[in-house]
Amino acid sequence: MPDLLIPFPVLKQTLQQVLEQVGFEESRAALSAELFAKTDLDGVRSHGVERFDRLLQYIRAGVVLPDNTPVLLSKSGFFERWDGQFGPGNLNAQTAMARAMELSSENGMGCVALGLTNHWMRGGSYGWQAVEQGKIGICFTNTMPNMPAWGAKESRLGNNPLVIGVPRKNGPVVLDMAMSQFAYGKLSRLAGAGEKTAFPAGFDQSGNLTDDPKTVLENQSALPVGLWKGSGLSLMLDLLAALLSGGNSTKDIGKHRLETGLSQVFISLDPKVLGLETWFEDKAEEILEDYLGAGAFEGKSVFYPGQQTLLTRKRNLEAGVPVTAKTWEKLLNELK
Amino acid sequence: MPDLLIPFPVLKQTLQQVLEQVGFEESRAALSAELFAKTDLDGVRSHGVERFDRLLQYIRAGVVLPDNTPVLLSKSGFFERWDGQFGPGNLNAQTAMARAMELSSENGMGCVALGLTNHWMRGGSYGWQAVEQGKIGICFTNTMPNMPAWGAKESRLGNNPLVIGVPRKNGPVVLDMAMSQFAYGKLSRLAGAGEKTAFPAGFDQSGNLTDDPKTVLENQSALPVGLWKGSGLSLMLDLLAALLSGGNSTKDIGKHRLETGLSQVFISLDPKVLGLETWFEDKAEEILEDYLGAGAFEGKSVFYPGQQTLLTRKRNLEAGVPVTAKTWEKLLNELK
Repeated sequence: MPDLLIPFPVLKQTLQQVLEQVGFEESRAALSAELFAKTDLDGVRSHGVERFDRLLQYIRAGVVLPDNTPVLLSKSGFFERWDGQFGPGNLNAQTAMARAMELSSENGMGCVALGLTNHWMRGGSYGWQAVEQGKIGICFTNTMPNMPAWGAKESRLGNNPLVIGVPRKNGPVVLDMAMSQFAYGKLSRLAGAGEKTAFPAGFDQSGNLTDDPKTVLENQSALPVGLWKGSGLSLMLDLLAALLSGGNSTKDIGKHRLETGLSQVFISLDPKVLGLETWFEDKAEEILEDYLGAGAFEGKSVFYPGQQTLLTRKRNLEAGVPVTAKTWEKLLNELK
Repeated sequence: MPDLLIPFPVLKQTLQQVLEQVGFEESRAALSAELFAKTDLDGVRSHGVERFDRLLQYIRAGVVLPDNTPVLLSKSGFFERWDGQFGPGNLNAQTAMARAMELSSENGMGCVALGLTNHWMRGGSYGWQAVEQGKIGICFTNTMPNMPAWGAKESRLGNNPLVIGVPRKNGPVVLDMAMSQFAYGKLSRLAGAGEKTAFPAGFDQSGNLTDDPKTVLENQSALPVGLWKGSGLSLMLDLLAALLSGGNSTKDIGKHRLETGLSQVFISLDPKVLGLETWFEDKAEEILEDYLGAGAFEGKSVFYPGQQTLLTRKRNLEAGVPVTAKTWEKLLNELK
């Protein structure tokens, strides 16, 4: 069955209504719904409305607390630690990036470490949040254990996504990368279709690389990006997130059946306050022009991170946001 | 021919003498020599004494200016921009990290962007510099173009190393990763020995992955870590380094035959000032214990970044630092 094409305002409004029903105050329901709907609008379908029922499940399990908002724990210069109070992950992350941006408006740079929060859904949201205000946004999160360290039998690392956004008038550059080469969601889809991955995706039971998504899913043994290198980077991000927030590590998160109590770090830099606004604009332009001018191999293309997002956004705003019929039906069923 | 084993003080003293001869003031010669000698002491042979003759070549070409030290350009909160004045890259980087650490001692966090500097040699040096003072150290640099973007024919990205160091009493965790899967130095050695890489190392002339180091060297087409992901991360690091320092991008650096005028960013966080000192110690311990307890596949091992460094350092301090006879002879020939 082909996807439905839901007008963006309808998608957002429907999500908001469900969130209000499960206890979100109106303005918080509106913002959370917007973050979810924009995720699909931008074509990141794995972390938008497809994942919404997991949020509802977590709310019903008492793991995500709709009313809770972050509380300041300590402040030192332009670094702040906040306690996420197990509030909704996307609202908490949005608040934390907004606070880092506020600090950067005052001082040029700001950093917020956030503990005891929930899954932020699409990490890229907070990169876009920063660049849309003309600021650099950098953030990362830990996750539950879902990836083995290089050489290791057990999956004790998270895939700990890292987001870096750089503002640019002709289209910001926003990288949103998990430390696993492929997302488990993608592996599930490929396994369902009986397909292999185009590059090794993880390890088999003997620790050898495999491109069979089913094997990787069974062993929860996703491949770290860059083999030993991404394995190391994932560990560093967990250390930084847990140590700086005073919150949980991937190990701690793994103690619970549901993925909760995550640690995150948000950094923002403000080109204007740093006296670099014009420079940023011209230089970013020059760098990307050179980057895109490299020429692609036959049958391949060169994109910068976030480049396709704006095209997808435009198309989906006009034609409607693709949602599977099943997901849309499930969502409508949530409406009393 | 087996390597010579040079006592660390002799290695350091010899390097210092050569540096003084080419115009370094005594204390600067001593520090630069120490950074080079420690690189070999720690087993990072690609970026120590083996690379020393390239420094001499750059000095003789007037590209590295021994006397020049970084100059403060602007300051905003705990973020500072410095001009490296084309001074020696390792001394400049050491100065920049020291300044970031100083800022973090005052405010909890500090950031220094450094433009117009030279190759910092072993990036890990500045991660170790921070952790040895009980601080977090994060830094990255751009480089000359030496890696293609994912899908691209021409190599217009740098391999832009990223360093993250987290302090820990029982052995700090220090990641030092270039954005290419294998260093060109390693590929040269393998090509010389007629060997292949264990995993794809780059692209052939049609843009297909290859494990033939000779092909990768010929095309200067090193593989980005994590394929499209490391390609994106490399671009972001170049953007951040060039934009924040007000200096050169990888593209600019590529205009010159010799790799000079690099841009770098140094960040430090001080657990003590952040009121997290005890927490850091205990939590880092717990995370690494869990990490190392994952168990390795047969014939494989699990290490954390930097773990083997301390063992290598201890061994080389006792037995002498391995240096090839050829390199040692060349170094002695520099002494008048």
